[in-house]
Amino acid sequence: MAEKLPSRSENFADWYNQLVLKAELADYAPVRGCMVVRPYGWALWENIQAALDRRFKETGHVNAAFPLFIPMHFLEKEKEHVEGFSPELAVVTHGGGEKLEEPLVVRPTSETIIGYMYAKWIKSYRDLPVLINQWGNVVRWELRTKLFLRTLEFYWQEGHTAHATEEEAREETLRMLGVYADFAINEAAVPVIQGVKSESEKFAGAVQSTTIEAMMGDKRALQAGTSHFLGQNFAKAFDIQYLDRNNTLQYVWTTSWGLSTRFIGAIIMVHGDDQGLVLPPRLAPIQVVIVPIYRNESQKSEVMEAVRRVGGELTEAGIRVKVDDRDEVTPGFKFNDWEMRGVPLRIEIGPKDVEKGSVALARRDIPGREGKSFVPQAGIAQTVAEMLTTIQDALLARATAFRDANIHDPKDYAELQEVVKDGWAFSWWCGDAECEAKVKADTKATTRCIPLEGVEGEGKCIVCGKKATQKVYFARAY
Amino acid sequence: MAEKLPSRSENFADWYNQLVLKAELADYAPVRGCMVVRPYGWALWENIQAALDRRFKETGHVNAAFPLFIPMHFLEKEKEHVEGFSPELAVVTHGGGEKLEEPLVVRPTSETIIGYMYAKWIKSYRDLPVLINQWGNVVRWELRTKLFLRTLEFYWQEGHTAHATEEEAREETLRMLGVYADFAINEAAVPVIQGVKSESEKFAGAVQSTTIEAMMGDKRALQAGTSHFLGQNFAKAFDIQYLDRNNTLQYVWTTSWGLSTRFIGAIIMVHGDDQGLVLPPRLAPIQVVIVPIYRNESQKSEVMEAVRRVGGELTEAGIRVKVDDRDEVTPGFKFNDWEMRGVPLRIEIGPKDVEKGSVALARRDIPGREGKSFVPQAGIAQTVAEMLTTIQDALLARATAFRDANIHDPKDYAELQEVVKDGWAFSWWCGDAECEAKVKADTKATTRCIPLEGVEGEGKCIVCGKKATQKVYFARAY
Repeated sequence: MAEKLPSRSENFADWYNQLVLKAELADYAPVRGCMVVRPYGWALWENIQAALDRRFKETGHVNAAFPLFIPMHFLEKEKEHVEGFSPELAVVTHGGGEKLEEPLVVRPTSETIIGYMYAKWIKSYRDLPVLINQWGNVVRWELRTKLFLRTLEFYWQEGHTAHATEEEAREETLRMLGVYADFAINEAAVPVIQGVKSESEKFAGAVQSTTIEAMMGDKRALQAGTSHFLGQNFAKAFDIQYLDRNNTLQYVWTTSWGLSTRFIGAIIMVHGDDQGLVLPPRLAPIQVVIVPIYRNESQKSEVMEAVRRVGGELTEAGIRVKVDDRDEVTPGFKFNDWEMRGVPLRIEIGPKDVEKGSVALARRDIPGREGKSFVPQAGIAQTVAEMLTTIQDALLARATAFRDANIHDPKDYAELQEVVKDGWAFSWWCGDAECEAKVKADTKATTRCIPLEGVEGEGKCIVCGKKATQKVYFARAY
Repeated sequence: MAEKLPSRSENFADWYNQLVLKAELADYAPVRGCMVVRPYGWALWENIQAALDRRFKETGHVNAAFPLFIPMHFLEKEKEHVEGFSPELAVVTHGGGEKLEEPLVVRPTSETIIGYMYAKWIKSYRDLPVLINQWGNVVRWELRTKLFLRTLEFYWQEGHTAHATEEEAREETLRMLGVYADFAINEAAVPVIQGVKSESEKFAGAVQSTTIEAMMGDKRALQAGTSHFLGQNFAKAFDIQYLDRNNTLQYVWTTSWGLSTRFIGAIIMVHGDDQGLVLPPRLAPIQVVIVPIYRNESQKSEVMEAVRRVGGELTEAGIRVKVDDRDEVTPGFKFNDWEMRGVPLRIEIGPKDVEKGSVALARRDIPGREGKSFVPQAGIAQTVAEMLTTIQDALLARATAFRDANIHDPKDYAELQEVVKDGWAFSWWCGDAECEAKVKADTKATTRCIPLEGVEGEGKCIVCGKKATQKVYFARAY
């Protein structure tokens, strides 16, 4: 705690790794590549879960739980799916002291086992649509890991829906992408771009993958959530058929969509600064910390009386508040500590504040004097609620401005190679996988997405110069 | 759905198995012994989770997430623990296409990996107590499985706490047992008995295990939640030490406590009847179903207007209500369907009700005319809320009376052998494991618990006749 964080601008990777540990969001587990999500990190995830789950239920979805273990041969039923996931599997070969006849895979994602169950449950058009989501853990045997961003086990939700028609399934895919974007922008203050993945970047087994892409503080891209239109690929692999109104057997159309604890990494990397985390008020486990300031026992008792009263009023108003009444550390230490943990607003109350019936407010997003104000204790709950909204809006505005300032429109391939070293390129692309592969080989930048909103007109592919009707974002990504 | 359930009194086991499937609470997974918790069952579990989580947070606990995988050698550090769990382990031997140097165990419970992390985090008395809970899945390779009651993978919460003193840890153990009992009695209307497990029935690695025991509808016992005082067993195995106020290194004292999806089995078996589930209103995913009754389109439109208005008022009042407006099935079918699913209260609205400004209420817990009443639409939300409370209380009273009527005080060992065939015995026991083993061998009944509240005086052991200062419950158990 006494040690300072590495500088964010000088060493973004070290800053990130140390911040996750210091802020007690997560820790390394004794199993390679696994993480422990500590209570402060889990409280943040619980707030993310609540914000998403509310949106899922508002759009007609229900939750369920499917098994952790999947028979190995299930994965083999969808050719692209097994090719995509087999290098990353954790395999259970023994159970109850005996070798299993067929090894079980620890789920890397659940399309196959859910597809099997849907085939059992879905009989008629009356059973459709099926709109199920699952909150849980999955395992992918990654070689290079990083807390939250890429771990062997991670936590997520995976929605799996089945529909009578292609149109409905395509609508669902985009509806849930929209839910993710709404969550990211309005809850996490992370301005994401909604778009379609290229063929080479899509999910193993999907017909079309859509994504929300965010720009991190080091200008690299992060895929922050995905929604897939699976066509009839899994319906055919698992024989999910229904009798339509004309009594004809039809395959269903399915989708899947997921957002994971990786999103916590996005929040850290979009908003954090040299002092530590900066959490968006709507998701922050602690929205306001109150630090009492006093020099002797008589000051302490009058200060603590005001602290408790103000704290009580904020709690009453539904604001998540913590009173830091530790005796063994100084107020200065507390300021640094809570700044590092990203609490959006600090309230200081000292003897003078008691006298004047005021408090000092310090905004986390604006360091120093500029972010400080003095307000009356009367009406404090409303003042604080408004300030939290202001901070939320300011974080989104700042992240949006940063993103927009770092998206470039290079005039030629040489310039593209330059700009993706420290930003994104938004360029015409003919759609050929070869052009995409060339950019990746030359620059490590990949196509992130073709934005949903599209572009007018046409241009020339930034790589090969052929006619192009779409623009794509190129960026180095996590 | 057209098929009737087996009779509960004639074939309790079949009744249970078919009801779980028919009510769509859960289904068999394609992996032996695993279950799929379907949306209706998961919604019930979500309500259980919310009721428990609120109580955990009120008693100062926070949530976190520890890894699914545990290195095999961790389990071996606590001798009794590994002996208890090693026959039930699922083992991952391969990851990412390669054989692992050390196999990983899929957690059967997390004392060991959490102990390892606590040793890393706890340095000083200032870090204590640590009060962490985790919601998640665990795996135990059971041979004989039954949906909810005993499955390879199940869902639960496991609390793990560390304390500076033995006294604090013992207090925590009983505090959490009390939380479970309060939840069981006041949310699930399951009248449980709090008590201490015998040495032979305790958790592998515990110094003392405490339990809440419930009587099912077939008079068998079910261990519905446990809270363990672990002494310094895991502290010593994982070297969890802290510097006390005198700067001396001390081992911490730990506890663990868990309640699982097994509890759903208890709710089914305590309250259910020949018609199906009977869910306690406080936990029911749907508290009230409204069934419209009409014969033609003009009736339909006026009835549906009233249905929507009544439904809206109930929703507004925070009551979980469903309108069953299916056209393809009859009202009679709907009545049976929702009775089978255990919805506590049904509202029927037909043309005469519209005329009179009334509705018909039908209680799930009292079948037929006796449970039916006609009430005004005016003030419906309050009427329904009161009725739900009445039903909740009636379920608890009925289950308590049933339990008490089936606990016997046999006068000798011969009578004990009789009564445990169809009930519980509450008898003096000397405490010897041999007497306990004899009862088990002769009757299949095990000691369930020595009640916390204790008994006055002393008596003679029901088995051996030696002096006994405690009474214990003997029963056949799930």
